[in-house]
Amino acid sequence: MPGSGERTPTVRLRELGLVLPEPPRPLGRYQAAVQTGSLLVLSGMLPLREGVVTAGRLGDRISNDAGRAAARLAALNALAVAQATLGTLDRIRRVVRATVSMATVSDFVDHAAIADGASDLFASLFDEGHTRLALGAYTLPLGATIELEVIFELHGEG
Amino acid sequence: MPGSGERTPTVRLRELGLVLPEPPRPLGRYQAAVQTGSLLVLSGMLPLREGVVTAGRLGDRISNDAGRAAARLAALNALAVAQATLGTLDRIRRVVRATVSMATVSDFVDHAAIADGASDLFASLFDEGHTRLALGAYTLPLGATIELEVIFELHGEG
Amino acid sequence: MPGSGERTPTVRLRELGLVLPEPPRPLGRYQAAVQTGSLLVLSGMLPLREGVVTAGRLGDRISNDAGRAAARLAALNALAVAQATLGTLDRIRRVVRATVSMATVSDFVDHAAIADGASDLFASLFDEGHTRLALGAYTLPLGATIELEVIFELHGEG
Repeated sequence: MPGSGERTPTVRLRELGLVLPEPPRPLGRYQAAVQTGSLLVLSGMLPLREGVVTAGRLGDRISNDAGRAAARLAALNALAVAQATLGTLDRIRRVVRATVSMATVSDFVDHAAIADGASDLFASLFDEGHTRLALGAYTLPLGATIELEVIFELHGEG
Repeated sequence: MPGSGERTPTVRLRELGLVLPEPPRPLGRYQAAVQTGSLLVLSGMLPLREGVVTAGRLGDRISNDAGRAAARLAALNALAVAQATLGTLDRIRRVVRATVSMATVSDFVDHAAIADGASDLFASLFDEGHTRLALGAYTLPLGATIELEVIFELHGEG
Repeated sequence: MPGSGERTPTVRLRELGLVLPEPPRPLGRYQAAVQTGSLLVLSGMLPLREGVVTAGRLGDRISNDAGRAAARLAALNALAVAQATLGTLDRIRRVVRATVSMATVSDFVDHAAIADGASDLFASLFDEGHTRLALGAYTLPLGATIELEVIFELHGEG
């Protein structure tokens, strides 16, 4: 666990004025998270808020700014799932990897800027950095703009 | 290992009347599975049966029912690889994560229903749930409709 | 660690006459690699050399030979990141998994041959085999032809 003098992810989230959404319900016969050893593996997170998903392709209906916001929203959902599963975000040591899949038009090249919508949020909460992949998918569930895969590492386990 | 009173994955498979296919041979210079710690990581599994692959896009040549069957077939191939690698499915505690990539038309949105073809099979064999991603790829090896990534967790290792 | 009589990855690399490129800099707010337990997880690697990326779709501007070379180049970048992170490639036991995402035309089917550009390199350096996924993405960062995900397992840790 972090030393008592450090600002925990929970404290930082509050300082940023962020409130986590309700953790999303799985769309099929799977569960939102599984812990294996010191890793917490999450199912694909969509940019969902109160049941509404950000949908459409980057470079077409969705601007880069809206895409970044969608990546951030998917990351907030990932944090909501982690909190619901673990009881607190403060058991999380870091994000090991985030994979940001995004629906794009065929000549889109700004994947890194979009994915930073998720990375900036994680970087503001956890001292240790994460690895990342950003890819253009052809289609995503519900027509979503973003699907985010996250693997967290927990403190003092495994 | 599960208690002796439990129905093991092998028993359940038999009760379901399922016979695993021959484990597929790699298409290139890699191997079908690698164990690292308590995890068994598999290469991408296609919907192959006796050398024939289910090919074509969902929303075009492939109906949702055929897509679900293809996802299930890829999952059966994953189980066949696990059994060939481990000697028995009963060393498996759970699926940690399944990623179901599928070839689709550009406006396809039913990824979750297709991916349940794999998830339903896993849920019928293992008591503990799994995480899942479902994504639309642009193209897949051999023109396949589905490619499935599976990570298993084993009992009492790591 | 390997026995003193074995040819280490560093020795093999030299025997092959290969010189690793400069490790690529992240395109956003993430880092190139994270170690968790005995695993070294890398961010997505592109076919970059001296700041120039191999770009374009397989089946269109990029031939299969050029695609294989791009996959190999992305793998060399992965090795460069591993060496920069670990100090030496000789701490690596194996590649656990390589995922080769590639930009293709809509009817492309030769993913396995392209991905072997990375797998052949890994097989020439490490005695133990790896698992692999090969997929066709719709778009990749910077318009790249290839994006490679690699997870390494390290000797004697975790």
